[in-house]
Amino acid sequence: MASQIGFIGLGIMGRGMVKNLVEKGHSVAVWNRTHERAEALSKELKVAVAKSPRAVAEGREFVLVCVSDTPDVEQVLFGPDGVVEGVSKGTTVIDLSTISPSAARRFAARLAEKGVGFLDAPVSGGSEGAAKGTLSIMAGGPEDEFNRAKPVLEAMGTRITHLGPVGSGQMTKLMNQVLVVVNMLAVGEALLLGRAANLDLRKAVAAVEAGAAGSWMLSQRGTQAIDGYWKPGFTIDLQQKDLRLVLESAEELGVPMMATSIVHQLYNKLQREGKGGLGNHALVQAMEEMAGIRLQKEA
Amino acid sequence: MASQIGFIGLGIMGRGMVKNLVEKGHSVAVWNRTHERAEALSKELKVAVAKSPRAVAEGREFVLVCVSDTPDVEQVLFGPDGVVEGVSKGTTVIDLSTISPSAARRFAARLAEKGVGFLDAPVSGGSEGAAKGTLSIMAGGPEDEFNRAKPVLEAMGTRITHLGPVGSGQMTKLMNQVLVVVNMLAVGEALLLGRAANLDLRKAVAAVEAGAAGSWMLSQRGTQAIDGYWKPGFTIDLQQKDLRLVLESAEELGVPMMATSIVHQLYNKLQREGKGGLGNHALVQAMEEMAGIRLQKEA
Repeated sequence: MASQIGFIGLGIMGRGMVKNLVEKGHSVAVWNRTHERAEALSKELKVAVAKSPRAVAEGREFVLVCVSDTPDVEQVLFGPDGVVEGVSKGTTVIDLSTISPSAARRFAARLAEKGVGFLDAPVSGGSEGAAKGTLSIMAGGPEDEFNRAKPVLEAMGTRITHLGPVGSGQMTKLMNQVLVVVNMLAVGEALLLGRAANLDLRKAVAAVEAGAAGSWMLSQRGTQAIDGYWKPGFTIDLQQKDLRLVLESAEELGVPMMATSIVHQLYNKLQREGKGGLGNHALVQAMEEMAGIRLQKEA
Repeated sequence: MASQIGFIGLGIMGRGMVKNLVEKGHSVAVWNRTHERAEALSKELKVAVAKSPRAVAEGREFVLVCVSDTPDVEQVLFGPDGVVEGVSKGTTVIDLSTISPSAARRFAARLAEKGVGFLDAPVSGGSEGAAKGTLSIMAGGPEDEFNRAKPVLEAMGTRITHLGPVGSGQMTKLMNQVLVVVNMLAVGEALLLGRAANLDLRKAVAAVEAGAAGSWMLSQRGTQAIDGYWKPGFTIDLQQKDLRLVLESAEELGVPMMATSIVHQLYNKLQREGKGGLGNHALVQAMEEMAGIRLQKEA
């Protein structure tokens, strides 16, 4: 069931998503703030290039948005020449960005005034998942909107979950981020303790990862930290943006976030030192400094 | 290769281990502080009952110890009628308890004076792993001692790792405990955030557990916490004993343990409230109180 899709935001995630939408036979027009990126993509893939968010939304069944943060989504939806000016009644806007859950609810309400549907549908799985079409997509919104959008979401991901009303996708993504960073805090404390005791850390990880101590972060990022490999699967800068959303939501809801706050502070320090482009597992570097030891043995 | 084994400590872990040793054909004599427990076991299994740690060690190739804490190990090894008085040169003492890594090194040195070998070999996998013979065993000590002891360890566990010199097994077990409790802290923060936002927590866990947010604690203990099932796989009291060892070792080594310390404090509170017998995932109960919400919806 091919759909007419407008797509906004051609970062590393967005480009992978568009490729998969086109491959599954959808008809896609794209818009990107940096126009050259849209032109470049149109030379690789059969996509139309639109001149504004308004133009990319005109006559489309679905408008997909994949940008960085809450203000960026607000800008493309409601700013000058925004989606809301071009979109028709009956269209569904699907926001794939990770933004504030309460902002998602506000955006949905504003679009509903025009008879336009809205799903929040943040993703996990990184640039690799976007390229391969194997993302996890955590969707919130009315069930009928979700069902209508499902074939579009399935073009981009393999694990598509409808979590509840608008905002539920974002809240689930925020839970995901809490788990990711605090699991990494656990990995950092464990590895530094082992290193201080002069353990063979690779052996130690292999001895414990299959049991109750096991986590994706330990097996994937813990071993990279041991090797001093800090290239990002997901950068500290992006992680920090998401942690701000976590801490804002937690504040609104009155939930204390002790461990998540520690990670946020340690990332602040790394960002001040210009390390925001490293992978989120470089959290360990801030902990190394506190402990006065390094995971890597001297050569 | 059947061995002559003396076994000290018939708690829930020790009883499972002895059963597996006997089933694999080893000849086992047992001693337990509460004598009745040894007598009871001798009615179920073909084991001899000894009158003291000294007697259980006499003429044995291996003396296995599975008791609660550092002072208990010291008592059975070096106290009145202790193992050290009965043991012969060439015997290997294998300590399966979780104790202080530096104490393990001291005990090894004292036994070495008598020509007696020592391995620290703490386990993970719980009472179920002990009963089924599927424990993970993290061993430290000289490689030749380890190789000689391997068939004995293999009677009790399926993942036997030699980590390095004496104390390495204990340090690896302490890393394991850091990962377990801080991963649970992550689970608690994530679940309470989701609960405060009125998410369907089962759906949210299912949406994230296969990705970067995944951990054994999330999938196993997180779902139990959602259901309000607090029976122990491992009790808070035992976990807290192990965290004291973690924090002592970290102090000796100068490693800051921010997240582990938070968990330790929250467990202190639960212990004061008489909840030390609950499972270690009841950590969430202390967090619920701080947040003023409960994971279980009102009936």
